[in-house]
Amino acid sequence: MSDGFGEMLRRCWKDGPARGVACQVIERDDEFVSVEDAYRYFTRPEEWVASEQRAVELARGRVLDVGCAAGRHMLELAGTREVIGIDPSPGAVAVARAQGLDARLGSVQEPGEVGTFDTIMLLGGNLGLLGSAREAPKVLGSLAKLARPGAELLAVGHDPYAAPLADHDDYHRHNRERGWLPGQVRMRLRYRGWSTPWFDRLLLSSDELSHLVDTSGLWAMESCGQPDNLGFYLAILKRKGAAVPADMLGG
Amino acid sequence: MSDGFGEMLRRCWKDGPARGVACQVIERDDEFVSVEDAYRYFTRPEEWVASEQRAVELARGRVLDVGCAAGRHMLELAGTREVIGIDPSPGAVAVARAQGLDARLGSVQEPGEVGTFDTIMLLGGNLGLLGSAREAPKVLGSLAKLARPGAELLAVGHDPYAAPLADHDDYHRHNRERGWLPGQVRMRLRYRGWSTPWFDRLLLSSDELSHLVDTSGLWAMESCGQPDNLGFYLAILKRKGAAVPADMLGG
Repeated sequence: MSDGFGEMLRRCWKDGPARGVACQVIERDDEFVSVEDAYRYFTRPEEWVASEQRAVELARGRVLDVGCAAGRHMLELAGTREVIGIDPSPGAVAVARAQGLDARLGSVQEPGEVGTFDTIMLLGGNLGLLGSAREAPKVLGSLAKLARPGAELLAVGHDPYAAPLADHDDYHRHNRERGWLPGQVRMRLRYRGWSTPWFDRLLLSSDELSHLVDTSGLWAMESCGQPDNLGFYLAILKRKGAAVPADMLGG
Repeated sequence: MSDGFGEMLRRCWKDGPARGVACQVIERDDEFVSVEDAYRYFTRPEEWVASEQRAVELARGRVLDVGCAAGRHMLELAGTREVIGIDPSPGAVAVARAQGLDARLGSVQEPGEVGTFDTIMLLGGNLGLLGSAREAPKVLGSLAKLARPGAELLAVGHDPYAAPLADHDDYHRHNRERGWLPGQVRMRLRYRGWSTPWFDRLLLSSDELSHLVDTSGLWAMESCGQPDNLGFYLAILKRKGAAVPADMLGG
């Protein structure tokens, strides 16, 4: 199986979609495991956290959904906006297209020929694609290439210090010791016999995000909401007018 | 966390019990993973496979539920039978007791002072406690020590050859190559930061089970149903009258 994430979405979609049909395992590099029901990728707005609902309401003009999966956010926009989604999973793209959406194979680094956008959305944990303090400027640079002048980046963040749990406190401490931001989560996704390579998902407080955004030189933090009781918040970044430095556009 | 299984049951029980609240990960030694919702341990008879329903109907006299977990099978008997459950998880025993059941800390090998029984139940996958072709005679011997003369062992088996899947065919082949029964599954259970050691759960066809039972000398296969469409079947074993050989009672 080369696309377990896509297989999982197909499986859940085929049957309904319904809860409890297909789940992925998220394994952290300290062996902590959690489980995520594929149904999550088919939820309706009333099941989303408020900051995701708000992000979709704010999308305007030509919209890009980065890491669109089965397209649950796109579905809300498709009637009234031009919205394109990119995802590196062929199965995810297939399920989104089966729902009538304009989803395409692609990633932040290799988005394909999708043009430029007035709104870029990083929802459903996809702000985590910033990866690490070291990688974040490159990712913000890749996103800037997709942004029209004055474009907005709508990102839902997850504050790693909200709802502290002993399991996570230990992990944060370990990360500090290795010189990482506390919320840099080295993880892999597993589904049946399939696994991704290990990769980093970056959870950030709004202050940490502000700092990374400021140092990018490409985006400005326009507004940032207070975290809700689960730690989710909506950050709105605005593309700065300045030309993108060549070293941010490489690769 | 020293008892993740128990923590998972407590978590699921605290909230209802409800689906989707707590799930364990079952990891096979070839890295295949599956996910099991803790809700399964709180299901009612109408949600069970027919062979489990039938087993509970057939229980008579003084009954032992081996690996009782939260006690879903015991609940059906508690009003009309004397039924004791044993489980190695303190959290499982606590949840079962909170439901008014006579559950005690114990395992097949170390059942504690529970006496002897007219019926012993191995349900919910617990026939897998036979472990391997090598271990099975010892486990059948331990069970025989708990059995009154003429007692019945009600076991729900899961035929590993039912509903063949490519993932499992490869695993069966690998097991044959290492000299194991195809259905000997080396696995561990994981919940959040907790994991069991690796252990073996034995899935058997009814023919394979018959062979192990015959060679034990302690039990006779009284009857064995046809596997249902998922591969589950009810096997009824009867304690033979002969004395238990000393070497089967050791340990």
